[in-house]
Amino acid sequence: MSFSPLINELVESLTILPGVGRKSAQRMALQLLERNRAGGLRLSAALSRAMDGIVRCRCCQNFAESDYCPVCLTDRRDAEQVCVVETPSDLAAIESAGGFKGRYFVLMGHLSPIDGIGPDEIGLTILAKQVTEGHIKEVILATNSTVEGEATAYFIAQMLANTSALVTRIAHGIPLGGELGYIDGGTLSHAFSGRKPVSND
Amino acid sequence: MSFSPLINELVESLTILPGVGRKSAQRMALQLLERNRAGGLRLSAALSRAMDGIVRCRCCQNFAESDYCPVCLTDRRDAEQVCVVETPSDLAAIESAGGFKGRYFVLMGHLSPIDGIGPDEIGLTILAKQVTEGHIKEVILATNSTVEGEATAYFIAQMLANTSALVTRIAHGIPLGGELGYIDGGTLSHAFSGRKPVSND
Repeated sequence: MSFSPLINELVESLTILPGVGRKSAQRMALQLLERNRAGGLRLSAALSRAMDGIVRCRCCQNFAESDYCPVCLTDRRDAEQVCVVETPSDLAAIESAGGFKGRYFVLMGHLSPIDGIGPDEIGLTILAKQVTEGHIKEVILATNSTVEGEATAYFIAQMLANTSALVTRIAHGIPLGGELGYIDGGTLSHAFSGRKPVSND
Repeated sequence: MSFSPLINELVESLTILPGVGRKSAQRMALQLLERNRAGGLRLSAALSRAMDGIVRCRCCQNFAESDYCPVCLTDRRDAEQVCVVETPSDLAAIESAGGFKGRYFVLMGHLSPIDGIGPDEIGLTILAKQVTEGHIKEVILATNSTVEGEATAYFIAQMLANTSALVTRIAHGIPLGGELGYIDGGTLSHAFSGRKPVSND
């Protein structure tokens, strides 16, 4: 390709973004150069600030700008409930749904022995310590409903079985607005085995 | 969304990239933070270097790192042929196809009076001057086969009609490997009106 070295370097660097191939990277680079150099410089500054400035919260492992994240620092959240999620975007999804007012514990992944990711790598020893030493009454497992997510949830439940905390798993079943004819078999049998008595109050 | 301000700023900045919405920007930001901080810093550096260091070639208007681009500086290209293209990626596509050994003139757009883009904005006065004063023998119009591209090609042909240079337009017709049954009507009639006698040598 007949671009100058600086443009080639920019195109190459843009391909590290997930979902961006060579062709999209080229389009991005040329569009920034042609129309939005100020935006490109802003993006450059934001990138370097975030890469250098973001650390992990010492309490919940989520991304934070200081030792503790805002959720762990505030007094207005229920410290007796801890919701375990795999990633910061899962946390963000739960927060934007609203309703949950407890704290979080972000694994930043899931158990995956084949990749060398064991309990220590996702901070489960820290979680166990927090549950044993603290006054956590309920641990809500909100890992993904994938094979790895389920295995991680099962492992955590086993790990916390002898503590005083109640360990719960978020419900799996038919999503709101879902039509039975379009739901897969696995979800349907989950929905049946997880059925609850209808209360009349 | 419950991200820290630095992450929100990064997500916001990433959405200036073409084809990147809020959700993809969030995925990009978190993936960089989790797995590739070094890559993120490299991208930041490449961005700021390119935004600050890329200028326009004084001869062909293409992106360059100094006053003249490599294609205009070299002696090994035919200075008597000039190929007019709309964007640097068009130039890159022609270069990677190989075969053309002349020089280029990059319009960085096309005529679009409704957006206030006239002949001066895309450098047509510079092109006219180069053709009148230089020793250019052929101007090959390789603007896109869109309404704006065709209008721009027609305008340039009119503008250069009284000069000694031959003005040509790249051929339009059936692409190699194309089956007639799947080709649109416009292309087919173009292919018929542009037919050439079969030579027997």
